[in-house]
Amino acid sequence: MTLALDSAAQDLLFREAHTANTFSDEPVTDEQVQAIYDLIKLAPTAFNQSPLRIVLVRSAEARERLAPLMAEGNRAKTVSAPLVAILAADNEFHEELPALMPHFPQAKDLFFSERPVREQSAAANAALQAGYFLLGIRAAGLAAGPMTGFDFAGVQKEFLDDDHTPLMIVNIGKPGEDAFRPRSPRLSFEQVVTTV
Amino acid sequence: MTLALDSAAQDLLFREAHTANTFSDEPVTDEQVQAIYDLIKLAPTAFNQSPLRIVLVRSAEARERLAPLMAEGNRAKTVSAPLVAILAADNEFHEELPALMPHFPQAKDLFFSERPVREQSAAANAALQAGYFLLGIRAAGLAAGPMTGFDFAGVQKEFLDDDHTPLMIVNIGKPGEDAFRPRSPRLSFEQVVTTV
Repeated sequence: MTLALDSAAQDLLFREAHTANTFSDEPVTDEQVQAIYDLIKLAPTAFNQSPLRIVLVRSAEARERLAPLMAEGNRAKTVSAPLVAILAADNEFHEELPALMPHFPQAKDLFFSERPVREQSAAANAALQAGYFLLGIRAAGLAAGPMTGFDFAGVQKEFLDDDHTPLMIVNIGKPGEDAFRPRSPRLSFEQVVTTV
Repeated sequence: MTLALDSAAQDLLFREAHTANTFSDEPVTDEQVQAIYDLIKLAPTAFNQSPLRIVLVRSAEARERLAPLMAEGNRAKTVSAPLVAILAADNEFHEELPALMPHFPQAKDLFFSERPVREQSAAANAALQAGYFLLGIRAAGLAAGPMTGFDFAGVQKEFLDDDHTPLMIVNIGKPGEDAFRPRSPRLSFEQVVTTV
């Protein structure tokens, strides 16, 4: 065993987990989402900036507003998934920095006074947290269906505001029938890792 | 238990894990890095684009080239960590897409023919994979020390090329003495998650 993580956990998070394209009717509760968040919030971001924001699309009315903004191939599963989460980056995350970095409250003004700098940092760190969140969904015994096939400007206008940039939309639930496609190939270690 | 992941694994990956600022002398082997990669490569990216690239800084010569490019507060720990990894986004990832998406090889030309589109997609998806990688380091029983305090242009020039954009640098090893700072506060569920 080269890894310390037990093999059941490796399977749950990585080896046996797959992006789901259909879901069962079993609901995903707020308690489950809170447990996922309480776990993944602990993983690191730069300056502890924690820019990920999550909009849970629960009501039938909201789901109807979202459906036409999804790419056609993503529409049916997004309508039928037990829960849909819009992941976004908060470009005004610096307002929370003094509370998030009590030992270095100057970071807000020293590093993040300019909006383009904040947008780039928020995009990178929200994506980092999205990685934690997708694994957190799997940690809850649920399947994730992350998607970037949607109208980004439309989703921002309909569900967010000018300060929040959408990153991806994630269907969440127990997998349904024929939920999984065959896993595609991955790059080899040698294609990805070099040593100097 | 709201989560399916066993609590020892929750502790290893999230609750007991902390960013390390000092490291022991115990080496980090190539076999460990390969085990981490073989696990985290399975987690999803958009179009399976898998843009994360990793440069392991092992030689004394390379470590000496890196040291002056680090922010002063990051220099000592980067010199002394058993292993240092430069994480980068491959902006030419589309060249691998026909192999990575054998069922939809047209994606390369349909979606990613323009460099600015590739750069944005590579940045987001490499950051997503960086999230998987940091948790993978912890899955190996090691501590990660991710840093963005370095000369990005200098690191790109010295260790990468125009097609690879640095994302973060990560010290990797067993924690040393006084390795951890107290954990900073996190945003509450209510600050991060809204429901519509």
